[in-house]
Amino acid sequence: MKGTQVTRHEFQPTHYYTTIGSHPPVLRIAPGDSVATTTVDARGMDFTGEQITPPGNPMTGPFFVEGAEPGDTLVLRFDRLAPNRATGWSASMLAANVVDPDFARELRSVPLTTWSVDLQAGEAFPVEPIPGLEPLRLPIETMVGCFGVAPAGGQAISTATSAEHGGNMDYRGFGEGVTIYLPVFVEGALFHVGDGHATQGDGEIAGTGIEISFDIEFSVDLRKGETIGWPRGENDDYLFTAGNARPLDQALQHATTEMLRWLGRDWGLDVLAASTLMGQVVEYDVGNVFDPAYTMICKMPKRVLNQLKR
Amino acid sequence: MKGTQVTRHEFQPTHYYTTIGSHPPVLRIAPGDSVATTTVDARGMDFTGEQITPPGNPMTGPFFVEGAEPGDTLVLRFDRLAPNRATGWSASMLAANVVDPDFARELRSVPLTTWSVDLQAGEAFPVEPIPGLEPLRLPIETMVGCFGVAPAGGQAISTATSAEHGGNMDYRGFGEGVTIYLPVFVEGALFHVGDGHATQGDGEIAGTGIEISFDIEFSVDLRKGETIGWPRGENDDYLFTAGNARPLDQALQHATTEMLRWLGRDWGLDVLAASTLMGQVVEYDVGNVFDPAYTMICKMPKRVLNQLKR
Amino acid sequence: MKGTQVTRHEFQPTHYYTTIGSHPPVLRIAPGDSVATTTVDARGMDFTGEQITPPGNPMTGPFFVEGAEPGDTLVLRFDRLAPNRATGWSASMLAANVVDPDFARELRSVPLTTWSVDLQAGEAFPVEPIPGLEPLRLPIETMVGCFGVAPAGGQAISTATSAEHGGNMDYRGFGEGVTIYLPVFVEGALFHVGDGHATQGDGEIAGTGIEISFDIEFSVDLRKGETIGWPRGENDDYLFTAGNARPLDQALQHATTEMLRWLGRDWGLDVLAASTLMGQVVEYDVGNVFDPAYTMICKMPKRVLNQLKR
Amino acid sequence: MKGTQVTRHEFQPTHYYTTIGSHPPVLRIAPGDSVATTTVDARGMDFTGEQITPPGNPMTGPFFVEGAEPGDTLVLRFDRLAPNRATGWSASMLAANVVDPDFARELRSVPLTTWSVDLQAGEAFPVEPIPGLEPLRLPIETMVGCFGVAPAGGQAISTATSAEHGGNMDYRGFGEGVTIYLPVFVEGALFHVGDGHATQGDGEIAGTGIEISFDIEFSVDLRKGETIGWPRGENDDYLFTAGNARPLDQALQHATTEMLRWLGRDWGLDVLAASTLMGQVVEYDVGNVFDPAYTMICKMPKRVLNQLKR
Repeated sequence: MKGTQVTRHEFQPTHYYTTIGSHPPVLRIAPGDSVATTTVDARGMDFTGEQITPPGNPMTGPFFVEGAEPGDTLVLRFDRLAPNRATGWSASMLAANVVDPDFARELRSVPLTTWSVDLQAGEAFPVEPIPGLEPLRLPIETMVGCFGVAPAGGQAISTATSAEHGGNMDYRGFGEGVTIYLPVFVEGALFHVGDGHATQGDGEIAGTGIEISFDIEFSVDLRKGETIGWPRGENDDYLFTAGNARPLDQALQHATTEMLRWLGRDWGLDVLAASTLMGQVVEYDVGNVFDPAYTMICKMPKRVLNQLKR
Repeated sequence: MKGTQVTRHEFQPTHYYTTIGSHPPVLRIAPGDSVATTTVDARGMDFTGEQITPPGNPMTGPFFVEGAEPGDTLVLRFDRLAPNRATGWSASMLAANVVDPDFARELRSVPLTTWSVDLQAGEAFPVEPIPGLEPLRLPIETMVGCFGVAPAGGQAISTATSAEHGGNMDYRGFGEGVTIYLPVFVEGALFHVGDGHATQGDGEIAGTGIEISFDIEFSVDLRKGETIGWPRGENDDYLFTAGNARPLDQALQHATTEMLRWLGRDWGLDVLAASTLMGQVVEYDVGNVFDPAYTMICKMPKRVLNQLKR
Repeated sequence: MKGTQVTRHEFQPTHYYTTIGSHPPVLRIAPGDSVATTTVDARGMDFTGEQITPPGNPMTGPFFVEGAEPGDTLVLRFDRLAPNRATGWSASMLAANVVDPDFARELRSVPLTTWSVDLQAGEAFPVEPIPGLEPLRLPIETMVGCFGVAPAGGQAISTATSAEHGGNMDYRGFGEGVTIYLPVFVEGALFHVGDGHATQGDGEIAGTGIEISFDIEFSVDLRKGETIGWPRGENDDYLFTAGNARPLDQALQHATTEMLRWLGRDWGLDVLAASTLMGQVVEYDVGNVFDPAYTMICKMPKRVLNQLKR
Repeated sequence: MKGTQVTRHEFQPTHYYTTIGSHPPVLRIAPGDSVATTTVDARGMDFTGEQITPPGNPMTGPFFVEGAEPGDTLVLRFDRLAPNRATGWSASMLAANVVDPDFARELRSVPLTTWSVDLQAGEAFPVEPIPGLEPLRLPIETMVGCFGVAPAGGQAISTATSAEHGGNMDYRGFGEGVTIYLPVFVEGALFHVGDGHATQGDGEIAGTGIEISFDIEFSVDLRKGETIGWPRGENDDYLFTAGNARPLDQALQHATTEMLRWLGRDWGLDVLAASTLMGQVVEYDVGNVFDPAYTMICKMPKRVLNQLKR
């Protein structure tokens, strides 16, 4: 974070959007600032469990980042992702599109599962025991399912899906402390955030994580004139890129190409060097295979990159 | 391994196959036995670097496992995967199918890269320095790219691709010490093995790992009457299943459905319980996205499964 | 068309949208009415060839249809699709995504091709002869590349792509005289239209048809309370449904499922009867395989359907 | 057909294969020769309706074509495709993979449908009336679902699927009188044929056509030294190419690339000219979307090609 006079804003949302677009900003913040706010869960339920807005990943925001212009990169960090109620919920049956087509007939519609989310113990478990899973205790690993910036060209993109602007990527790697980079398409970037998960498996294959409302704190920064094509991220161990599309093959193509460009610009590697390196060390994570656009993550280990001169 | 009188066979191949099929067995072994043998690299070059057989993942074998019948499961363990020469090679340019179609024009044909494979140091690095990658030293993490059993119905499946019988899955998780389960389709199972890699990135996105000939030692066992649909595996941390198909979405469907079946049969979880569990804890690895059939791996962490009664 | 007092509106657009969404309507029309208006070409050029609005399939409209409510079906007929200038243009090189990935390297960037569009002769041909194609004269077969109604949930969907609301389907079957059915998602339906083609191959595999501005006349009607899931159409020979998605497999799933539903509701066929029939007589057309969402058309021949009691 | 002394062979099969591979030839024939033989249906039932060989598209052949060598093109014509019994059968329920995944739950397992195949009237209809379809009479349009030549490299490819060698393409365009071109991979080409259909819809979306045994007559010729990559065909109105793969997108890439090559070699069109032409006039047919590899057909109308100098 640059600058010396950063501000910590507190913001309480009164309205939510189920598209990510050029909506009127709710708050203007400066690079370096942080915001403490809240998000409702995917069905619009707040910290009391009451549904206060229609379902479909309602977004808090958008936040206008001073100085952000198309072609810049918004830097984002989730400083705190804290469930603010004691129960979450999940869909339970696997989605029909993640099993063999013939097996889909064995799936059936079932009620949502309510999970106790015990922050003290750091564990989640079904409130009503599920036969065979009675002893199950899952570690809480909070993450944000859906966030992004306003897309280009006046689009308002449903929070059900994702694209270059971010959106409903449902990648479990978008958790606390990760640095995220988003391409800026409109003045002020217009950052939206919501859809907190207490935890989630790869792929979000049942269609949800453990969905819950959050107290959330995030900070922003800006890289003026640095243009990226897809969301990127960085944690202690990896640089990573996110590609969003169907089929998964195309999501992988986007993520892989974005990593090639990153290695080119920031490590000075030409296509041959970047290819040689990626071919032997790249790793992939599946973000989601449930939403209209799937998400694939391409990761480069820092332990290898750190061998190289940057 | 069961049985008391296990045999360690030593076998030196004189002929190699580039299909996996019902070829005449080269050796008959019993459940519990192990075999020490050698494999040539993907272009048919042996420990001397000489090409002794035509290229295309030539297989050592097939090995006939006494008592194996269709519907059984072959249990396999790679006890030792040791490169037996000092250099390997790799393709260097990313494959056109893993980048955005428009980006494919920036790829070009380049010579193979020769890698020094220093077993003493446990490191591999290009023999001719590649500009930008001069300091690169990759840890050696041996794995087998292609192995499998004879498929059903008299098929002879090219070692370029993979299916229910295994084949060219190019998953970096098929390394030393992993237990692998393969469905048996023909009498004797007819196990084939080859295509050793000193290391490889996820997806084999440049089309090869660091390809090298191996001294290899593996052991087999048999689960009579246990029928599985796709290759499975087990390591210290995970149970996993492999699905092979294109697009990656379909490979994921196969692997996910196979894991559902596994949890059903061995943990007694019905579709609802297995779905609830998998939805929140499953992990996926990309095997390969280069071969005619792609490979997706579905993983269940033992730390979670061990909470449950089996 | 129902009603007796139908109106023929003349409308000259002054503003264009490159998203299909809940924009302020430019004209209110009643079921049974027709509209004579103009469309600019895909790069925003009007009948003079001057670019009067930014590129990207600018839409004329939206037109508010009185009485249309979510859950209704908008009935649409293109009564006249007449190029209103003497030249069109096309991209010439095939898109990288429609050829084998390795072949994509043989494609290159080339200027747009200008086509003479001779309405008198009913033919189009390149203004500058292309070596090997000098004698080529293509019949003019006008069609509309992009049209649709405002989608649900406040979305504004780019005219580059398509979904349940229609959009950039680029199907050559959307020509003069065809009856088209669109699901209504918002009050007034909000119909948008643009992106005229003098002709186009299946798939729009070079990325464009012969793009040209149109004098266009269309009429609308309404089916109150009839709910459909995807665009449908009807010509002299076929009923058809359009599915929009990637990969083409998913577009085909959407179109096929929509046809099953149509045969169920309007012909009273249960899933077994509809399946038996479709399995032996269905036909498919490829709409586009260039846009972010591909389009597949599922067709049922009337010569067969007319055998059945409706 | 070239040559003056052509022979009409009559051949009665006694053995059938469910893989296409380098099996011992049953007959040696010369370019120009024709063969009158029989095929069993997809479940191995002959003209009496008795099952005489295991199911799975059993093949008659292989036929060794004198002089055929790898790199040549086998020219094939189905001169007569005549059902030789009075009933065929079909699967009735749509395949789970051709409908929306969530809709798959509405499909169910049902018995096969028996169809009366009335050659006199040229019509087929269900023997047991299906409610809603009682008046249905489908015109008989015979075609061959599965045929091909032995693939390269010692593969024996299941007759369930298809690839460069042909195989189970299930394209309704492979009917009487069409000229077909197949790449030759092994000495003698080794032509296999079977899986006759009285008729079939595009895509074979219920998993079968109206399956029936055939009296079949075909003739062969050879184009020495002409190498093609995928099956090609020619009828009165079109040249066409077949691509076999999943997803359909990849099948389309293969077929499109093969057509580009054809226009290049035989019409002298460079990539720019061929692209310009194909972009505005190409047509696609869906072969099958049921088998492990899907089939897409790329068609060029002769009425356009005939304008050009060849």
